[in-house]
Amino acid sequence: MADQTDMTLQCPIPITEHDQIQLAHGGGGRLTHQLIEKMIAPEFDNPMLNVRHDGAVVSFDRAKLAFSADSFVVQPLFFPGGNIGTLAVTGTVNDLAMCGARPLYMSAGFILEEGLPMQTLWQVIQSMQRVAKEAGVHIITGDTKVVDRGKGDGIFIHTSGIGIIEHPISINPLSIQAGDAIVLSGDIGRHGIAIMGVREGLTFEGAIETDCACLSGLVQALLDAHIEIHCLRDLTRGGLATALIEIAEAARAEISMNEAPIPIRENVRGACEILGLDPLYVANEGRFVAFVPEKHLVKTLEIMHAHPLGADAIEIGKVDTVGQAASQGMVTMKTQLGTSRVIDMLSGEQLPRIC
Amino acid sequence: MADQTDMTLQCPIPITEHDQIQLAHGGGGRLTHQLIEKMIAPEFDNPMLNVRHDGAVVSFDRAKLAFSADSFVVQPLFFPGGNIGTLAVTGTVNDLAMCGARPLYMSAGFILEEGLPMQTLWQVIQSMQRVAKEAGVHIITGDTKVVDRGKGDGIFIHTSGIGIIEHPISINPLSIQAGDAIVLSGDIGRHGIAIMGVREGLTFEGAIETDCACLSGLVQALLDAHIEIHCLRDLTRGGLATALIEIAEAARAEISMNEAPIPIRENVRGACEILGLDPLYVANEGRFVAFVPEKHLVKTLEIMHAHPLGADAIEIGKVDTVGQAASQGMVTMKTQLGTSRVIDMLSGEQLPRIC
Repeated sequence: MADQTDMTLQCPIPITEHDQIQLAHGGGGRLTHQLIEKMIAPEFDNPMLNVRHDGAVVSFDRAKLAFSADSFVVQPLFFPGGNIGTLAVTGTVNDLAMCGARPLYMSAGFILEEGLPMQTLWQVIQSMQRVAKEAGVHIITGDTKVVDRGKGDGIFIHTSGIGIIEHPISINPLSIQAGDAIVLSGDIGRHGIAIMGVREGLTFEGAIETDCACLSGLVQALLDAHIEIHCLRDLTRGGLATALIEIAEAARAEISMNEAPIPIRENVRGACEILGLDPLYVANEGRFVAFVPEKHLVKTLEIMHAHPLGADAIEIGKVDTVGQAASQGMVTMKTQLGTSRVIDMLSGEQLPRIC
Repeated sequence: MADQTDMTLQCPIPITEHDQIQLAHGGGGRLTHQLIEKMIAPEFDNPMLNVRHDGAVVSFDRAKLAFSADSFVVQPLFFPGGNIGTLAVTGTVNDLAMCGARPLYMSAGFILEEGLPMQTLWQVIQSMQRVAKEAGVHIITGDTKVVDRGKGDGIFIHTSGIGIIEHPISINPLSIQAGDAIVLSGDIGRHGIAIMGVREGLTFEGAIETDCACLSGLVQALLDAHIEIHCLRDLTRGGLATALIEIAEAARAEISMNEAPIPIRENVRGACEILGLDPLYVANEGRFVAFVPEKHLVKTLEIMHAHPLGADAIEIGKVDTVGQAASQGMVTMKTQLGTSRVIDMLSGEQLPRIC
């Protein structure tokens, strides 16, 4: 009676492997990747999706647009430096910025749990509008649903966004080239640690706040200066390591990076040690990597250093080869001890519900 | 430390009234309306949002686009004639169609509960792709999050969509005019009853399946015939009555309708009586009303009757006045007994989690 005509095709993730969704399927690591690459993306298969970027790029008449969508399930809803609302707007603004688009319009969908204090929702909505205004985007459509007590978790938010691409360059993993310099926009690890700190009841020397910030202004500054950007990626769920691996796998690229120059604040490093976390995999909400031709490296750093969100920008690696038929893509890191190791996606769950 | 700078402004829904979210805030009736009109829309305030339609319309260069978003929390996930996946794609396709747009691209965001059978997700994803393919839309971006067991309810889906508007007419509540005929595309009540039937363990004489269907083809047929459509609205959460009231309130219009011609199947009518539901307020997922000039009524009906989804289309009322300063908008219905009554939004919750 129900729509079960689809039962004929075998599930592409063998039941012997994972017959149920686990928290790690949402962690941004190997299991998330498997879910998307084995089940979701092959079924929805199309050229726009196949670029595997933070958003999709589509053309209408003469207008080239980026389109992106994100769900937010972070716990706790409020944390040092932000809340689920600031995160929801920033997340979609940043996904559009990573496509080289100027964010213009957004949707906001709310799934509210019965019993949520009205005042909490009101605070979140005001935060969303404040961030949207700062980023110059308008929230123009949306939806609100309510689920029974115990069937949700306060507030889940889904945002999607449309931005306009006003330049001819294609910014995505498939555009990276051998020899590209990889620039990291600043210190890493603050968002994840800010949240884990609250969850674990830790107090740090010097407050650790999320780095949550809209990156569209800084990206626009690079575009205005005609930097020939090949790829951008914000370092959210899964952190710097996962972002680089995803790009390497999409482009079948060999990437080498250095551990030494990566900026990590002392208290963040300390918290990571206490919590047993590798800062390379900890989520950020205001940091990104840019892949640019070596000849544009100096100018890229100059522009980033002049912007408050890129003051600590630094080159952390380069692209060695791209598109070698035999390669599945690989990231190797020269450690501070001088040894070299392959960086892989985490197979388990490092930080559940971080965004 | 958290983002609490916004605490200064008083919550626009007085705490004395509703200090917590209730299920009825998601039911599509008066409380949903209050939440949107008093809190969300004034805060996100902008001209596109203020049209109060199923989607927003924006222009890029020469391209005019519709942009819409929806969240889906239906329970059970599978029901006669469909599942949460078919609903999620249909819902956004229909919102775009109601803007007079040709749906082209969609996003899909999943919030999965830990422990969800992988096979269930796989079925839902296949259903989504099947409906998307039939409707000619591509799912080109998305997101997947997982929440702990007991913090979600199997699957929540959020979809957003972009469609292109290829004609010069403005289809929204503010375009309706005095004298417009109101055409209902077919029988009402099947979606809500299909779901309530499963929940309440009822069996009907003759299965009652959801009417869930993509309306973009039928709308396109009307546009191709140059019907001067003033407004379209699909009859989802809150049903026919709520759709008409929303339009009347947005346009400050006085609308009169007749109960007699409204098609309701015998078994749906019987189920409504057993369940104590008014079919006028029961959700549909494949039905809509069209506001067209009286002079185009005959042609409108002709085109709709030629389409499988409009075979039972019928005129159910007309617009008496529009934009009278003293009017807040009103819908009156001539009942089958010959009396006349004002139709109002439900203040409570008729059908929780119907979509």
